[in-house]
Amino acid sequence: MLEELKKTVFEMNNKLVSSQLVVLTWGNVSGFDPGSKLVVIKPSGVPYETMTAEDMVVVDLDGNVVEGKYRPSSDTPTHLYLYKHFPKIRGVVHTHSMYATSFAQAGRDIPPYGTTHADAFYGPVPCARALNKDEVEEAYELNTGVAIVEEFKDKDYEAIPAVLLKNHGVFTWGPNPAKALENAITLEYVAKMAVLTEQINPNAKTIDQYLLDKHYNRKHGKNAYYGQKGDKND
Amino acid sequence: MLEELKKTVFEMNNKLVSSQLVVLTWGNVSGFDPGSKLVVIKPSGVPYETMTAEDMVVVDLDGNVVEGKYRPSSDTPTHLYLYKHFPKIRGVVHTHSMYATSFAQAGRDIPPYGTTHADAFYGPVPCARALNKDEVEEAYELNTGVAIVEEFKDKDYEAIPAVLLKNHGVFTWGPNPAKALENAITLEYVAKMAVLTEQINPNAKTIDQYLLDKHYNRKHGKNAYYGQKGDKND
Amino acid sequence: MLEELKKTVFEMNNKLVSSQLVVLTWGNVSGFDPGSKLVVIKPSGVPYETMTAEDMVVVDLDGNVVEGKYRPSSDTPTHLYLYKHFPKIRGVVHTHSMYATSFAQAGRDIPPYGTTHADAFYGPVPCARALNKDEVEEAYELNTGVAIVEEFKDKDYEAIPAVLLKNHGVFTWGPNPAKALENAITLEYVAKMAVLTEQINPNAKTIDQYLLDKHYNRKHGKNAYYGQKGDKND
Amino acid sequence: MLEELKKTVFEMNNKLVSSQLVVLTWGNVSGFDPGSKLVVIKPSGVPYETMTAEDMVVVDLDGNVVEGKYRPSSDTPTHLYLYKHFPKIRGVVHTHSMYATSFAQAGRDIPPYGTTHADAFYGPVPCARALNKDEVEEAYELNTGVAIVEEFKDKDYEAIPAVLLKNHGVFTWGPNPAKALENAITLEYVAKMAVLTEQINPNAKTIDQYLLDKHYNRKHGKNAYYGQKGDKND
Repeated sequence: MLEELKKTVFEMNNKLVSSQLVVLTWGNVSGFDPGSKLVVIKPSGVPYETMTAEDMVVVDLDGNVVEGKYRPSSDTPTHLYLYKHFPKIRGVVHTHSMYATSFAQAGRDIPPYGTTHADAFYGPVPCARALNKDEVEEAYELNTGVAIVEEFKDKDYEAIPAVLLKNHGVFTWGPNPAKALENAITLEYVAKMAVLTEQINPNAKTIDQYLLDKHYNRKHGKNAYYGQKGDKND
Repeated sequence: MLEELKKTVFEMNNKLVSSQLVVLTWGNVSGFDPGSKLVVIKPSGVPYETMTAEDMVVVDLDGNVVEGKYRPSSDTPTHLYLYKHFPKIRGVVHTHSMYATSFAQAGRDIPPYGTTHADAFYGPVPCARALNKDEVEEAYELNTGVAIVEEFKDKDYEAIPAVLLKNHGVFTWGPNPAKALENAITLEYVAKMAVLTEQINPNAKTIDQYLLDKHYNRKHGKNAYYGQKGDKND
Repeated sequence: MLEELKKTVFEMNNKLVSSQLVVLTWGNVSGFDPGSKLVVIKPSGVPYETMTAEDMVVVDLDGNVVEGKYRPSSDTPTHLYLYKHFPKIRGVVHTHSMYATSFAQAGRDIPPYGTTHADAFYGPVPCARALNKDEVEEAYELNTGVAIVEEFKDKDYEAIPAVLLKNHGVFTWGPNPAKALENAITLEYVAKMAVLTEQINPNAKTIDQYLLDKHYNRKHGKNAYYGQKGDKND
Repeated sequence: MLEELKKTVFEMNNKLVSSQLVVLTWGNVSGFDPGSKLVVIKPSGVPYETMTAEDMVVVDLDGNVVEGKYRPSSDTPTHLYLYKHFPKIRGVVHTHSMYATSFAQAGRDIPPYGTTHADAFYGPVPCARALNKDEVEEAYELNTGVAIVEEFKDKDYEAIPAVLLKNHGVFTWGPNPAKALENAITLEYVAKMAVLTEQINPNAKTIDQYLLDKHYNRKHGKNAYYGQKGDKND
């Protein structure tokens, strides 16, 4: 079932590695099929080198395995919580990518210092609050999702498709798994540039609002003119 | 038409990726044909993996598409403005390369700390002024060109073939697309060394004028002796 | 003899290079066969490009060469000392990997800033004390082992399978050579993130104990649920 | 003539690129044949991609081209001066490698913070004095050699086979071109670790003299035991 989506999710998991966002078995990509309301996700702890599309696991939104011989990624409850609360997303990516995760470890949002950031994220990429002891011990992965959704209570998850998890890593999402991965690549890139920008000029200022608006709308607004016609999300 | 130039521009766009100056679809290279006064440029938002030489777009200096099935890069108006105001250039490159763009985000010129810089750029690589709100909203890409040309009012665009765009990225140029790309590679390299130089010695001084002169003239002066005879620009 | 282990040790030595943990001939991996009480280790100073599985050297726990045409790695006495004093380990890795070694040169433990660290190391990765002049001159490599074991007098070598050697490099270990290498990869990764975390926020705090516990136990505790069933160490 | 040496010098020039020590046409390797007293060196400004062993240029110690269709590297006078004044060397390498050159731009010696450094360089790698205006204008490349030899007046060029050139780049050397290249690789590696060490601990101390002695002698002393028998320089 969902062979096409399995193939896509498998390919995007491999691209996590070739894009140098993950080493070993860290990181995972999932995709959501709105028709069947099922999620395809990477199995837990299977090495990327030997993994095949057939190894992807199919789960329902309650986390029951519908198909697959492996356990799903241990981060599955977070993915499911995001699909349930961010209704327009169809792909989710989790990584411990170097620079973005360092911001998460430092407990800071990633400030928007330039148009590379603005083309993908309409404002700072927020660092969600830490979970408390009870939340960690009772349902760690589920509560990670709760903290993310809480963080976006007053934010637009389509305009800022990424979040940092305090002392942990990052989640990104998008209208399909490929776009979620692209957001993970951009996130890592702008995180590294933010570190460098502050090193080069400790008093660097974030981008002006009107330039942020311009770049975001150039790619995503209703009069978008970046990319080819009818291809608004790219 | 212009098949040879299309091939060159296509190859240089691919070298942007293999030289690790761009990820995803960021960045673009164009070439100018002085005979026909036409510009060949990368299409907008087409993935590098599937792009062919035939996908390159031909535009005139007013931005009209003369040939090509895709929209030209959204940065086309900046390229055209540069060809119109820097009459000797035949290639233009735009990137968000990591270290040079971080200087742009920090709003600082790249100081000439050594001969690697001096071999390509005869003085600091300047950071052009930010555009104001009206300039951004009315004609962002065109006004980016205006700000660059303004920055070079009292500078020699052949001696310093690169500029930083505040909170945005970089443009480089040259007597052909290959040389413009080479300048983009050198720019990124010297930007990274400038960050490191200041980290290693916060009181580091820029290169002495006579050493700057020597290295620049060794490669570009009328008695150039770097490279092979009759190959002054290389 | 021990052909299977030779092949594994050879492969892991090659993975040291492909994982970018070593350049030139620096670094070495060994494996321990508990049945015969013999150790298979990389030969000293043989280039990785020309090395074969047959070149691996077999030594007993007293350092006598049992099989092999080459001298064993000059670090062999350290490896042997670790196998003798950490009875459950079956693989040892030594590298001068960039970021972890820089912590060693700085004489600092690597603080646990996040769950990437916690998934592999249950607390700070300690920097062992420097050897004194006599220890260096009399039996440098053996005394390196002594200092490591001393450092773990009050620590669990299974829960923290890595150590930094002051002004020198790192050793990691594990229940097999592949896992020891995996720990070396993770160590380098978390060392780099620790540098960045402190740069991004000089007041960054280490991970809360309950989150450290959660991540370590999720992978290594008796109710581990990361990875596939019956695969507790992965 | 000197076909074997040409092949070696060609290969080592290519390894400069694959070792990521140079980009574009920066950097060069030469080899010295003590029998004929001739030097084989890379041609100037020829792209690495199209260069062949036959393109290597043969010059005598006075800089006359003895064989070859291209001009020799513009840095040839520096190479020749080193062969004349450091009688035991048979290979010389020049690069603008990122981290070592950043120390040169910062005008600082590279301090010996660990045994990775000590295995190759018996003390700090010195930064030679800047050339004055007359020296630069009259005979820049020759005087670069003069400043290097001056720097080593009280130092052992065999024990410290590398030097930094203020605001410029680095030279390394050795008993053959391969070893000179190896020293260039190690130099870049220890330069990067020195930057990181100082970032991790601004009060980091250099390696104790007795540990410096131990590591240097382990590889280079008369009782060397690193590497295989009869292979003292490796």
